[in-house]
Amino acid sequence: MRFRVYFFPPLLLAAALVLLLAAAAAAALGGESSADRSDRRGGLAMAATVLSALLVQILIPVAAVIGMIFALVQWYLVSQVSVKGGQASSNNGHDQYLLEEEGYDDGATVALCAEIQTAISEGAESFLATEYKYLGIFMAIFSIFIFLFLGSVSGFSTKWVPCKADPAELCAPSLANALFSTVAFILGALTSTLSGYLGMKIATYANARTTLEARKGVGKAFIVAFRAGSVMGFLLAANGLIVLFIAIVLFKLYYGDDWTGLYESIAGYGLGGSSVALFGRVGGGIYTKAADVGADLVGKVERNIPEDDPRNPAVIADNVGDNVGDIAGMGADLFGSFAESSCAALVISSISSFGADRDFVAMSFPLLISSAGIVVCLITTLFATDFFVIKSVKQIEPSLKRQLIISTVLMTLAIAAVSYLALPSTFTINVVGHQPKVVKNWQLFFCVGSGLWAGLIIGFTTEYFTSNAYQPVQDVADSCRTGAATNVIFGLALGYKSVIIPVLAIAVAIFLSFSLAAMYGIAVAALGMLSTLATGLAIDAYGPISDNAGGIAEMAGMPHKIRERTDALDAAGNTTAAIGKGFAIGSAALVSLALFGAFVSRAGIAVVDVIQPKEFVGLIVGAMLPYWFSAMTMKSVGKAALAMVEEVRRQFNTIPGLMEGQVKPDYKRCVQISTDASIREMIPPGALVMLTPLIVGTLFGSSTLAGLLAGALVSGVQIAISASNTGGAWDNAKKYIEAGASDHARSLGPKGSEAHKAAVIGDTVGDPLKDTSGPSLNILIKLMAVESLVFAPFFAAHGGLFFKWLNI
Amino acid sequence: MRFRVYFFPPLLLAAALVLLLAAAAAAALGGESSADRSDRRGGLAMAATVLSALLVQILIPVAAVIGMIFALVQWYLVSQVSVKGGQASSNNGHDQYLLEEEGYDDGATVALCAEIQTAISEGAESFLATEYKYLGIFMAIFSIFIFLFLGSVSGFSTKWVPCKADPAELCAPSLANALFSTVAFILGALTSTLSGYLGMKIATYANARTTLEARKGVGKAFIVAFRAGSVMGFLLAANGLIVLFIAIVLFKLYYGDDWTGLYESIAGYGLGGSSVALFGRVGGGIYTKAADVGADLVGKVERNIPEDDPRNPAVIADNVGDNVGDIAGMGADLFGSFAESSCAALVISSISSFGADRDFVAMSFPLLISSAGIVVCLITTLFATDFFVIKSVKQIEPSLKRQLIISTVLMTLAIAAVSYLALPSTFTINVVGHQPKVVKNWQLFFCVGSGLWAGLIIGFTTEYFTSNAYQPVQDVADSCRTGAATNVIFGLALGYKSVIIPVLAIAVAIFLSFSLAAMYGIAVAALGMLSTLATGLAIDAYGPISDNAGGIAEMAGMPHKIRERTDALDAAGNTTAAIGKGFAIGSAALVSLALFGAFVSRAGIAVVDVIQPKEFVGLIVGAMLPYWFSAMTMKSVGKAALAMVEEVRRQFNTIPGLMEGQVKPDYKRCVQISTDASIREMIPPGALVMLTPLIVGTLFGSSTLAGLLAGALVSGVQIAISASNTGGAWDNAKKYIEAGASDHARSLGPKGSEAHKAAVIGDTVGDPLKDTSGPSLNILIKLMAVESLVFAPFFAAHGGLFFKWLNI
Repeated sequence: MRFRVYFFPPLLLAAALVLLLAAAAAAALGGESSADRSDRRGGLAMAATVLSALLVQILIPVAAVIGMIFALVQWYLVSQVSVKGGQASSNNGHDQYLLEEEGYDDGATVALCAEIQTAISEGAESFLATEYKYLGIFMAIFSIFIFLFLGSVSGFSTKWVPCKADPAELCAPSLANALFSTVAFILGALTSTLSGYLGMKIATYANARTTLEARKGVGKAFIVAFRAGSVMGFLLAANGLIVLFIAIVLFKLYYGDDWTGLYESIAGYGLGGSSVALFGRVGGGIYTKAADVGADLVGKVERNIPEDDPRNPAVIADNVGDNVGDIAGMGADLFGSFAESSCAALVISSISSFGADRDFVAMSFPLLISSAGIVVCLITTLFATDFFVIKSVKQIEPSLKRQLIISTVLMTLAIAAVSYLALPSTFTINVVGHQPKVVKNWQLFFCVGSGLWAGLIIGFTTEYFTSNAYQPVQDVADSCRTGAATNVIFGLALGYKSVIIPVLAIAVAIFLSFSLAAMYGIAVAALGMLSTLATGLAIDAYGPISDNAGGIAEMAGMPHKIRERTDALDAAGNTTAAIGKGFAIGSAALVSLALFGAFVSRAGIAVVDVIQPKEFVGLIVGAMLPYWFSAMTMKSVGKAALAMVEEVRRQFNTIPGLMEGQVKPDYKRCVQISTDASIREMIPPGALVMLTPLIVGTLFGSSTLAGLLAGALVSGVQIAISASNTGGAWDNAKKYIEAGASDHARSLGPKGSEAHKAAVIGDTVGDPLKDTSGPSLNILIKLMAVESLVFAPFFAAHGGLFFKWLNI
Repeated sequence: MRFRVYFFPPLLLAAALVLLLAAAAAAALGGESSADRSDRRGGLAMAATVLSALLVQILIPVAAVIGMIFALVQWYLVSQVSVKGGQASSNNGHDQYLLEEEGYDDGATVALCAEIQTAISEGAESFLATEYKYLGIFMAIFSIFIFLFLGSVSGFSTKWVPCKADPAELCAPSLANALFSTVAFILGALTSTLSGYLGMKIATYANARTTLEARKGVGKAFIVAFRAGSVMGFLLAANGLIVLFIAIVLFKLYYGDDWTGLYESIAGYGLGGSSVALFGRVGGGIYTKAADVGADLVGKVERNIPEDDPRNPAVIADNVGDNVGDIAGMGADLFGSFAESSCAALVISSISSFGADRDFVAMSFPLLISSAGIVVCLITTLFATDFFVIKSVKQIEPSLKRQLIISTVLMTLAIAAVSYLALPSTFTINVVGHQPKVVKNWQLFFCVGSGLWAGLIIGFTTEYFTSNAYQPVQDVADSCRTGAATNVIFGLALGYKSVIIPVLAIAVAIFLSFSLAAMYGIAVAALGMLSTLATGLAIDAYGPISDNAGGIAEMAGMPHKIRERTDALDAAGNTTAAIGKGFAIGSAALVSLALFGAFVSRAGIAVVDVIQPKEFVGLIVGAMLPYWFSAMTMKSVGKAALAMVEEVRRQFNTIPGLMEGQVKPDYKRCVQISTDASIREMIPPGALVMLTPLIVGTLFGSSTLAGLLAGALVSGVQIAISASNTGGAWDNAKKYIEAGASDHARSLGPKGSEAHKAAVIGDTVGDPLKDTSGPSLNILIKLMAVESLVFAPFFAAHGGLFFKWLNI
């Protein structure tokens, strides 16, 4: 039984499909290298690439398949931890680590863990099932929208028309573009959904296993949680890549030489991914915080029972929340960023010399970067799981941070290699209304690299401002001496301050890549930041899994020693979660800018001049949107939490024996309430994001919309970073006081002291900031940009009705 | 004695000077009407204005003098309330309102009030004296900077050079521009300082008088506080106008026909005004909140004594804070806006057809609008003080709100009249790099009017979100049921939401005026919003005066009944203070945009294209600056408050008999600490504001600086509005629970309930947001813009060193 392979049919199916399609693609595109092709065309004679098109068509799917296999291996290794305690404890080889405490029945505890795990897993499934139902309805409606809006651009014509760039060639009719954009949209949505779902599956599969491994020691538990995280990371990176590649290959069968039409349709993939992220981040974010705040307000404050106490009816919902919000939501968010930055890069390059030269290898540069990323992350993961072994609590955080550094250093080398192999030594990027930009391949290396290293800087800055090992969080903890008010003031100030370095890092990356390769540079810089996605997601997903593991240990009544180990894992997870959020918002900023660039290209806007009324008004209103959106999401959490509070109170008041632990609460009802409330409450903020670009584009036209996107981007980034870091700092300031690891910390504590109470208030305020409104802003800025990009032809053709009516 | 005229030598001196100079000006400019002038020049034949230049030269100073006389009359009326109680209570005619309470000695109370008033007044003087010392040093250094930077533009040349616009004419040498800019800078600073000082004087003169009048009834007390506020409002509006007018007349003696040079030098006036506002808003803001938070943390929280208890050593400092922060700070802020918008309008119009035609009447349009505003506000004031009489508490708020409506309606008519009389029916505004814009006079009416009415909308929106008569604040109060955390979450969400309508109102005003008359439209829209400045300031200054009056009543141990009356005045003042802040930030937004427009004109930038690397990087870093700045100011308040906490604790611990009320605390020491801390702590945020444009302009050039200004503007507006409103809402939510005026409010209270404690925490968090960091952002966005405008020629000549070095 120990060596039973965990069988996962859909993935194997996908792998088989990939190999099949790789062959088909090779046949469709032909094996000639880009050099042959450009020679034959005899046009702009560009230097050839080292790689041949055939090799590229093999390398990309192979990298994806390697990623998938690696994920499966990790999953298999996680599955080796048995959660069938009861009868098996003597024959599963785990005897050596059984804790011999009085009155502690290991078999019963393991069975209890398994039971809790099932409850969490079912709760998460039930939420996702409901979410997917509404998501399905939304997708269906929006697909029709996309089809109708884009189809209407030239009156649902089915005739091939002369291309704009080169009237001698024919380009696909708008009806085809509408159809393929819609298909790409659905593909992106399905892939994102699948990735999020698989992530949730492995997380709820690994949480109890982490708890059980904690009996052996902190190192063993760490490995399980981290492996589970990497399953999520690699599946997502590989799925995203392979589906995109397949879509390109298949679409190409229709589009033939109309590369612009092909890649513009592919942009729908990004829109699909980000639409799912809207549900994941906003709906999931509301869910997780409604459950968390609701559970705390009644449990901790009113009933005075500890966190994760099994008597609290909302405790399962709270643990479910970690999985649907932090795992599925974060996964969908980063998948969206990956899909969008790839699409932005493809759209921009399709109208540049790569597209004009039909240089398939160079066009595939973004996908090759991501392919290399999978391999680099694979090697990096081995440093955490195999090359080093975690032996004590103190090694956890350094080990996770080492992951970031190793992956960044290795990736830098990989980028250099890919830039050399896949790019012609010189090429041009077209910029609407300006001279084309001549770019050398080493310059593009700097573009990708600047994004990658900016990500590292953002990660470490976030750590500095949110880890209680450093001064900022300790200052916030210290301010709790004078009460909750000073704690809140200092926390807000910390969040504001933490914006400075990340924004400067983003600004430098933008300046560098923008100057070197215009908007294409920005797009590949975003890809650079996301190239270590698998590692980033692994350490990010590790957090909620450890959090859950701690919750299960508490609920199962495991000994204090084990809880201490899971707490140590969790504390490290808090910081990595903050780092993950930093990455997410940093990449969202670059991605949005790249999408913005692709949008202005596609809409044919040469200049976004903010000393013109339309653009400036767009800019200032755009800068307001993140505030409006945050007001909505924060209010949504508040309302959903109140619904939860009422249910928890009701159960405590009406179920006799609940407080005494004789009767189990009705966990399912709380899961249901959180599910319903979060879906209901996500409608207004979701509508704001989805409708704003459509309304502004239709009524006020592309110029105002461009200003709006720029405003939302530059304003949203700041609020998102400050909200995440403020919340993370408050959380860790509270943990700092609770842990009492230094004289200073002990002078503020212990749990229950006035300073600790003040810290708890800060933590509760931070919950919606760091887990709902802050991260949701990523979606706001990206989704509005990619939606504008997809609908750009419609706005260009029919937009600006209000101004047309006013005759301005 | 009752009819003794309050003699105020400096003002009479100023009045005499004005009349003298008006005559001189008339002589210097000659009496010919603009029609004659344009006929003679025979150039671009523009329609003539109805008003003649001579009339304009009379009307402007006369309006200013009327404003001053009106202020003096109000001051005289306030002075009629005697604060010499002891021996005079039987012969000053006030017998009828003596309260006959047991053990209440009216004479002693009046004497005590006078004593407290003196302490507050001395404290405020001592702070301002210290502030002015540092301000003086700063001004001296910065004057040298201005002179050197601007003088260096063409190597300190003293030769008249051919003008850029018309090489046939001669323009003043850069050394002269440097000199006159410096002089204008100093003039602006002195005027702002004088206005702030006089405002503080009248406020500390009227506070105890308001308390004493409250013995007669709430209506009498209201009139005193309101009259005192209007002294401040009218003095400031009149001083600002007259000094600017005199400066123009005198500068003209040198500049002759070089109108561009003349008005560009005059821009220094705005920079001077705003530099003082930096000290007033930031230094004053830190002072007032350090004292307030410090007094509350020890007094209310640790010692459990009521607010404004005379045993609290920080109580005088707290009351001083209201005067230096809310009166002198707000005055300097709005004076800065007035000066800057006037200067922006003048600079833009000097390079347009007004300047080319030497059309003095049309050029004076901004000053005429302000002149008309003084007269309109005068009439409006009579509605509050003479046409209606306040009889009950409920009439206070409506009466103040009526002021806004009346002044706006009357001003609309006045703007129509001025636009018809002072503008040619058609004229052109030049826009760098674009076709000149042809504008009709009725279009300019809409520009000014849109600003005016946007101000009213902002005022009423602010009221809706911060008055506890409406749902939003009641919701926040209700959230206190579940504790401080939910209160903070709901308060933040309220602040975010409150941004929507003001930003849309500003956006509409911007769009309208921008479309109709380019940047000139924006500048006059800002002037439109500020045209009712005297009334706005009056109702704004009324707030702190009433607040002080309440404090004095408490400290003097006056009967509960009187305290109730002053509390009612204060509650209305809280809302008007929030409205005032709304106006301040709204006008700051328009002003900054106008200055931004003037800057790009002067720097010769035709396009600020945010899809270029330099501009976009400027934009995103600019959007970050308000966060950096807010982090600094909030931290500053925290540090200054901690210094105060220590001193108050020390006094309570070391002075025997203090808690028993037998010994008086050392008030002066607390005033000194607040003064020192605020001056020290304002240096970092002040440096950020002053140095950023200089560094960015010098190293990265005008394009990046333009992006930076746009980013800071659109991002800063949002934070400023949300911070002010969040703080105002928390304050009034607390007051709502305390007052217990409805069933809902009573269910949350009374004072000391858990909900009330949660509300107090929110209020304390809100203090630095609404009184320091929020309003200080006005200065950030305006000051950076006006500084850029003044230094524009330097940046154009020598800026962008870093990029020059990089060769980009």
